[in-house]
Amino acid sequence: MNQTVPPTSDDTSFDTETCSNTTDIRRVRSNPDYWYPVAWSRELKPGKTIGTRYAGMPIALVRPVDGPVFALEDRCAHRQVPLSKGVVSGSSVKCCYHGWAYGRSGRCIDVPYLGKGKLPNGVRTFPCREQNGMIFVFPGDPEKADSVPLAPHLAKADNPAYKTRYFGRTVGCHYSFMHENLMDMNHQFMHSKQMGQMKPRFLGQKREPGLVEARYSFARTSGKQPFGEALIFGERRDVSEKFQHRDVMTIRTEYPYQTLRIQTGDEDPVMDLWIVYTPQSADELTNRTFGLLSVKRPKIPGILDMAWPLLVAFTERIFAEDREIVELEQQAWRDLGGDHNVEVFPVINALRALLVECGISPASESHA
Amino acid sequence: MNQTVPPTSDDTSFDTETCSNTTDIRRVRSNPDYWYPVAWSRELKPGKTIGTRYAGMPIALVRPVDGPVFALEDRCAHRQVPLSKGVVSGSSVKCCYHGWAYGRSGRCIDVPYLGKGKLPNGVRTFPCREQNGMIFVFPGDPEKADSVPLAPHLAKADNPAYKTRYFGRTVGCHYSFMHENLMDMNHQFMHSKQMGQMKPRFLGQKREPGLVEARYSFARTSGKQPFGEALIFGERRDVSEKFQHRDVMTIRTEYPYQTLRIQTGDEDPVMDLWIVYTPQSADELTNRTFGLLSVKRPKIPGILDMAWPLLVAFTERIFAEDREIVELEQQAWRDLGGDHNVEVFPVINALRALLVECGISPASESHA
Amino acid sequence: MNQTVPPTSDDTSFDTETCSNTTDIRRVRSNPDYWYPVAWSRELKPGKTIGTRYAGMPIALVRPVDGPVFALEDRCAHRQVPLSKGVVSGSSVKCCYHGWAYGRSGRCIDVPYLGKGKLPNGVRTFPCREQNGMIFVFPGDPEKADSVPLAPHLAKADNPAYKTRYFGRTVGCHYSFMHENLMDMNHQFMHSKQMGQMKPRFLGQKREPGLVEARYSFARTSGKQPFGEALIFGERRDVSEKFQHRDVMTIRTEYPYQTLRIQTGDEDPVMDLWIVYTPQSADELTNRTFGLLSVKRPKIPGILDMAWPLLVAFTERIFAEDREIVELEQQAWRDLGGDHNVEVFPVINALRALLVECGISPASESHA
Repeated sequence: MNQTVPPTSDDTSFDTETCSNTTDIRRVRSNPDYWYPVAWSRELKPGKTIGTRYAGMPIALVRPVDGPVFALEDRCAHRQVPLSKGVVSGSSVKCCYHGWAYGRSGRCIDVPYLGKGKLPNGVRTFPCREQNGMIFVFPGDPEKADSVPLAPHLAKADNPAYKTRYFGRTVGCHYSFMHENLMDMNHQFMHSKQMGQMKPRFLGQKREPGLVEARYSFARTSGKQPFGEALIFGERRDVSEKFQHRDVMTIRTEYPYQTLRIQTGDEDPVMDLWIVYTPQSADELTNRTFGLLSVKRPKIPGILDMAWPLLVAFTERIFAEDREIVELEQQAWRDLGGDHNVEVFPVINALRALLVECGISPASESHA
Repeated sequence: MNQTVPPTSDDTSFDTETCSNTTDIRRVRSNPDYWYPVAWSRELKPGKTIGTRYAGMPIALVRPVDGPVFALEDRCAHRQVPLSKGVVSGSSVKCCYHGWAYGRSGRCIDVPYLGKGKLPNGVRTFPCREQNGMIFVFPGDPEKADSVPLAPHLAKADNPAYKTRYFGRTVGCHYSFMHENLMDMNHQFMHSKQMGQMKPRFLGQKREPGLVEARYSFARTSGKQPFGEALIFGERRDVSEKFQHRDVMTIRTEYPYQTLRIQTGDEDPVMDLWIVYTPQSADELTNRTFGLLSVKRPKIPGILDMAWPLLVAFTERIFAEDREIVELEQQAWRDLGGDHNVEVFPVINALRALLVECGISPASESHA
Repeated sequence: MNQTVPPTSDDTSFDTETCSNTTDIRRVRSNPDYWYPVAWSRELKPGKTIGTRYAGMPIALVRPVDGPVFALEDRCAHRQVPLSKGVVSGSSVKCCYHGWAYGRSGRCIDVPYLGKGKLPNGVRTFPCREQNGMIFVFPGDPEKADSVPLAPHLAKADNPAYKTRYFGRTVGCHYSFMHENLMDMNHQFMHSKQMGQMKPRFLGQKREPGLVEARYSFARTSGKQPFGEALIFGERRDVSEKFQHRDVMTIRTEYPYQTLRIQTGDEDPVMDLWIVYTPQSADELTNRTFGLLSVKRPKIPGILDMAWPLLVAFTERIFAEDREIVELEQQAWRDLGGDHNVEVFPVINALRALLVECGISPASESHA
């Protein structure tokens, strides 16, 4: 009776099977040959430097008073203390300890007590770009950086017809839990206190190289529409038949990013979320989330701006529930010493396969 | 001059010898084929579930609105998040994340988005019973549960002639330190600030299968009887000769429980303590103590109830001192990487042998 | 242009080379055959005992009401709980748990419930002395204790012409970082907020068995002299030429101690610092600093005492900056799993060689 799957569609059939592949998905490292956001632009003032991180690699972001941001390994070549504790001087950064200075190229250009002819080697650099209020680095092979698109599908944040919320924080879990959480809309059950009871219907999936997509519609089975949701849709929706299963939610992991769009028919999306989970620690069991949530402005000007704090509070509550559960999943993984998931939902198994294929699997000897 | 041992009694002779057996007692796991309390009854309201633990195994206790409590492994079969975060519905519990439901048998009885014919396997269950205000589980072989007595020697808590205090908390040490602490009454020295100076006399020991018992009497050598102790005895006792060595304290470890009784002659005990130390972490180097302290009501009605807060405070201070010292013992064990005790008291050596015999010794390869 | 090295002096020539010796200096244990301060005298009242530590070894210091302090391994032979939690009785200390008593020799002299003929073995002792407000122990071979000088070069603290500040705290790093920090005066760069911009000139170094010494002079390149520094010099100094490079700072590591003196010509030092970094944890990656900072009293009586709080605050700020940076160095060492320093300053390379020679290098199998 709870079977909501259209039995005629091949790509939505279910099999009960354990995730029995030999690779533990929580040990798969993110692929460094992509652009990852590592900081919000607003965090880094002109003439300053801050420390950030990708998968255990400390990164100093430096914003000269003139010229674009650049990114160095955040360890002085001398004694490995963070360059981000240092002082920006012109377009170089001086280590706070003994004043060794590094330029945009990472080369050591001055040791105050040493002759110019004897300067030591410098530090590693990372390709670095700024877009949509985020600072991105390319932690992998720098030769590949130019040919890899920076944050695709992030168009709505620049579109004046939308208002965008920039949000995120550090979450104590492997990025794969984040992808699975968002794509499996059966977890609406968890948000019923915030959302009311919403019954998802799985409409189908798409699998292409580097991409998995799931489509859902929803029926409200009880409870009132929350105001935050009404804001997103730009209208009040009761439980009457005409609203049931009318909108389509499309969730896509296009490695390593994730998007969620809500559309009614062929209209522009009423909501467009772009989100990515940048690994923080070397074991990648923590991530920092960077999310841009764009909501279509309704016809009455100003109403969305006025009600924005409510939408922020609504999405914060949802995100807090998600954060708690994925951290519990990570804890269970630690306790059990590995992944024991029994996944019955094909699109999630497709997603897991994608993340393993696109990521860097541990060599057998590094299984710990 | 401090030799208080009656030299004529064989079973109280002392030998100075190191504990040189090859098994490190702090690595001996508790035997799971016993009933262990894992929660107080009052912690679990009807229609609710809570998470608890035995030796690293997370356990969800579920109390339906109707019917007895049951106990499941506290990990959803799907993604291993705690079922105790879920929702009780009839006599089943639904996982908070995607709504998978489990009944009393542990079988998965519903996945909201999956056909009934394809339901996945469920979760492990534990025999579970409730008695004397505690919820017990049997973590070992379920076949044995019915033949193993539940909390023997816990009679006084039901006896209207006694008033019982229920107490306990988590203590950061192996359960063996708790047993040794209580049975070695020479540690009265440590409580002299609370109790005054009490000189114990060891009267003898008993060793039977599964059981070690020690008997003591006491003489007050200086200091006033504390009021908390007077409450237990139901009368004021000064240092006059008639009270010296009049009462007999009997401490017994009857695996895995421990009892302490104080009796004067053949009268009913004035005090009867039943206590057990349920291992919490997987290494069993923490335990949760469940103690029932029953005090005989004096002839004047109401006086014990009135003075109860004083008795609570008195026993809390004693217990706090004990907790500090056993946690220091555990810390020393960690620092030294093993047990280095030099035990000179035969009854403690007998107790240690009992705990090793009745527990599960580590296989040689797991010595760490 | 920043080359401040006199090119004619052999012992100040620079080479850019990695510290490529096979021993990781941060794994070199301190040599226990020296006297180390483990507590301030004022911490230990008569008739009391306190617990302290050298390189993971817990040490109970006992001060009888009469007679000198003595030092025992801080673990009762019985159950390894700290003797420093015990009670001092005459010139012995009784364990708090079961009352086992130990004398100055470490011998067990009483077990309250055991015959005198059967007393168990006692605990380890350490040679222990008190001087200049510190309690020292000799953790190594006790036979050598008498022939090793106690805290040499600590004369100024007893000299009435000087006022001495006793300071210190626990710092989360290997002692070698502390030695390197103090000896490399190019790190004045880091203190420019406290000190103004001071340009150091390296005057030369001395290397003898067990000793490395560096000499510097300074020029103020901008900023006002801080008041705390004026106090030390006993006079105001502006940026005029006559003060530039007038004073000589001599920093010496005479294993395991370190000193820093500031002198003008042949006069007595205006400042004399004696400092040592006693390892705390077993891995020696934390230390407790004991520092005595002696400042020559100026001719006007009382002025130094009046201004003392300012000097304390000034040196505290300097020390806080040093502590932050050495803890960041230690953290980088942990992250990288070893020492990656690229040292270009010969006197620091000489210092590193000294610390490796005088310390205890790890056996190859204990590299972790």
